[in-house]
Amino acid sequence: MKKRRYLQTVPGEVIGLRRPTLPARLLEALEESVGRAHAVVDPEICAQFETDWTGRFRGISAAVVRPGSTAEVAEVLSLCSAAGVPVVPQGGNTGLVGGGVPMGGEVVLSLRRLTYIGEVDDSTGQLTVGAGTTLGALQQHLAPLGLETTMDLASRDSATLGGMAATNAGGLQVLRNGSMRSNVTGIEVVLADGSVLSQLRGLPKDTSGYDIPSMVVGSEGTLAVITQVRLRVGPANDNRVVALLGTASLHDAERIASRLRNEMENLRSAEIMERTTLLLVAARHGLPALFGDDTPWVLLIELSGRQAAGVTTDQLSEELTFKVAAEAGRITDSAIGSGGTDLQRLWSYRELIPETLAALGTVRKLDVSIPPGGCPGFVSAARDLVGRIAPSARLHVFGHLLDGNLHLNLLGVSEKDGDGLDLSVLELAVSLGGSIGAEHGIGRAKSHLLHLVRSPEEIDLFRSVKRAFDPMSTLNPGVLIPS
Amino acid sequence: MKKRRYLQTVPGEVIGLRRPTLPARLLEALEESVGRAHAVVDPEICAQFETDWTGRFRGISAAVVRPGSTAEVAEVLSLCSAAGVPVVPQGGNTGLVGGGVPMGGEVVLSLRRLTYIGEVDDSTGQLTVGAGTTLGALQQHLAPLGLETTMDLASRDSATLGGMAATNAGGLQVLRNGSMRSNVTGIEVVLADGSVLSQLRGLPKDTSGYDIPSMVVGSEGTLAVITQVRLRVGPANDNRVVALLGTASLHDAERIASRLRNEMENLRSAEIMERTTLLLVAARHGLPALFGDDTPWVLLIELSGRQAAGVTTDQLSEELTFKVAAEAGRITDSAIGSGGTDLQRLWSYRELIPETLAALGTVRKLDVSIPPGGCPGFVSAARDLVGRIAPSARLHVFGHLLDGNLHLNLLGVSEKDGDGLDLSVLELAVSLGGSIGAEHGIGRAKSHLLHLVRSPEEIDLFRSVKRAFDPMSTLNPGVLIPS
Repeated sequence: MKKRRYLQTVPGEVIGLRRPTLPARLLEALEESVGRAHAVVDPEICAQFETDWTGRFRGISAAVVRPGSTAEVAEVLSLCSAAGVPVVPQGGNTGLVGGGVPMGGEVVLSLRRLTYIGEVDDSTGQLTVGAGTTLGALQQHLAPLGLETTMDLASRDSATLGGMAATNAGGLQVLRNGSMRSNVTGIEVVLADGSVLSQLRGLPKDTSGYDIPSMVVGSEGTLAVITQVRLRVGPANDNRVVALLGTASLHDAERIASRLRNEMENLRSAEIMERTTLLLVAARHGLPALFGDDTPWVLLIELSGRQAAGVTTDQLSEELTFKVAAEAGRITDSAIGSGGTDLQRLWSYRELIPETLAALGTVRKLDVSIPPGGCPGFVSAARDLVGRIAPSARLHVFGHLLDGNLHLNLLGVSEKDGDGLDLSVLELAVSLGGSIGAEHGIGRAKSHLLHLVRSPEEIDLFRSVKRAFDPMSTLNPGVLIPS
Repeated sequence: MKKRRYLQTVPGEVIGLRRPTLPARLLEALEESVGRAHAVVDPEICAQFETDWTGRFRGISAAVVRPGSTAEVAEVLSLCSAAGVPVVPQGGNTGLVGGGVPMGGEVVLSLRRLTYIGEVDDSTGQLTVGAGTTLGALQQHLAPLGLETTMDLASRDSATLGGMAATNAGGLQVLRNGSMRSNVTGIEVVLADGSVLSQLRGLPKDTSGYDIPSMVVGSEGTLAVITQVRLRVGPANDNRVVALLGTASLHDAERIASRLRNEMENLRSAEIMERTTLLLVAARHGLPALFGDDTPWVLLIELSGRQAAGVTTDQLSEELTFKVAAEAGRITDSAIGSGGTDLQRLWSYRELIPETLAALGTVRKLDVSIPPGGCPGFVSAARDLVGRIAPSARLHVFGHLLDGNLHLNLLGVSEKDGDGLDLSVLELAVSLGGSIGAEHGIGRAKSHLLHLVRSPEEIDLFRSVKRAFDPMSTLNPGVLIPS
């Protein structure tokens, strides 16, 4: 098999129509390594691994291999590397930038069978999990122990912790705990050549060498394949209060959120949404429609704390009510809740947005990072751009307000208009001091735009680092770094 | 000039007696670049840059160059790299492992003139500082603004923020805010060839490429020269309470500290010290001798919080007094204080230890990381080793208890016994799941021992990463990675 069979394609395009065939000897060796049932070339089974959640990225793989242990991952990589066959590591396939989709006939290396969950070390509050463990599975495992994850995101039941590490995932608690890189304390990876590197001690302090965990986190499968992750977890914040605060402008919402952060120790989340989006959610899911026409923006606030540290629900409710009263001039309407049902109902407006929009058609998603404070200016300019470039498109904005992280969701945009729109919106974000990726990664969708935000010297250095880890460039070629 | 003039020596040994001479053309170019006053070959002036704080590491440099801007740093590196002359970047020279000392006649690149302090961005709580800014200068700058650094350490008035970033420094607040890597949100570096890479946006979320800040932090000047650091700072924790708690065993101290962490939101520091050490401090500095013979260990606890977030000194004092009462069975004696003078007096027992021990002779320092919970076993076994290998030595242990980070200070050890002792103690730490470096770095002192804690595959990868950044290996050769 020639290596150029696997050349990179442009996003969205599938190379040819025929599924590439692996050399028989390689396929046999892979079958022997992971078991016949887990080295698959059947097109129907492969298909599940060849499309992402959005449906925008769809490709063809030479095979799907699903190892059940680190040793098997090492064998698979060593075999593929020896044969010069490129590999796409894949977790829950919930990334939104095509980073885990085989676009050039690569071998898909699914890590989902690595579902190990280790014991919690009480003295450090850490545990080790297999890369294929979903966030939701870990949360369910921790709850009866009085513990919780420091990360949370809406795709918790599909997203794997290995994938979350590979993409430096963010989510709903970043303002309290930081992104994935801040919560990963150790890692086990396999290099392209099959070497296993394990830094799972999770010592609070360790200066013995370069920090492999923080290099691999966020590298989107281009440097190494993550097989185990050591994670910080925490005692459960068992007392929680959620409020939906309506505002007349994004600026007002930002002022309220900043003030709450400065004056409260217990702020966990500050999510921004548009009322027009919430009306769609309400209609689809039979929820009450919220607030009136004077309220284009809705800010979701969660406070949470630990009973054991003396934080009660009453105290949180009181504190929040008091702060809301102090901001009465900026708040058009509000709803506050603290019981289990209330919490779920209030959060459902936020969490049902992606599914609601997806039901209306193919959603073009852009994830941008804006310096906090710059969101109102960005949204207004982005709306102008959409109006100019794709006048019939509908734009829904939501995101993590205090992180300066907005998700632009576009319905009714052609793939052709879309490319120009992406470019203009991302250029706008960068011109305001922001970035073309906040928490979704760069993937295949934006690697050709990396130069907007990184200098030629930086991209050169990225290439050198990539070569240091993966000299033959068989790991996720075309992802993150422009080819 | 031949490149081998600069070959690495073993720690403590000076190569030859003659100061190497730079080619006249290079020296002239350096003088032109930074100004004649800042490119120095005068042995008397150079001498201040050739010895570290401990006096254990002493070398000879070809010249000391002190650039005043990033552009000058880039010129100096480009000139040295073109001439194949190795460079040792140097900050405040307070590192304790010889990482900033020229051992092979290198050019010392002192960053101390880069003392810029930028404006604080209120929306992110970040600012950018020059690498040569000392931690103390930044703290003094922030105090009138009602702000404080998230890092603190006893050498604050000498340690530079560039040096702290290069070594991933820890200190007195790691249990609350993490080590330097967790507090650096952006960085500007110059590569060996003079390219300037700047990632100073400090966006809360950014997935656009590999994370250069977290790669360079902790690389001890071997990958790039740090010229600016973007840092998280925070609102001042204006209300503070400190307690010294005497215990009969290290085990008791650990149990108390763990419990306080689990049950209190405001714990800032948990420092462990030996009473025998504090008696020396008290005698030298005219402080009252503390506690009785039944108290071999003293735990220093600080709680701190913000008035604006509703945390008062009274509340902290009450909370701490209540917790101390609950642990009465484990506490032999205690002293609590909260006013400015009291705080300073109680902290001075801890902060005057290094100077007090240094006044008694050459101190051999070992900085180890132990999995939290393992400190009592480690200390008792380390004491046995000292008794066996260097029976006349005096061992003083202090450190950051909840980080599992102990500093072993040895007086009266010959350089010969010392090497064997280092090896045995570090092997012990590793055998318990710990590391040979916690917050002091590896430097020249321990690079030959890196294999104790890192696998050959890991060290190979470190070498590849080093080559990716610094292909000619002119930056701090012999430091961190074994040569």
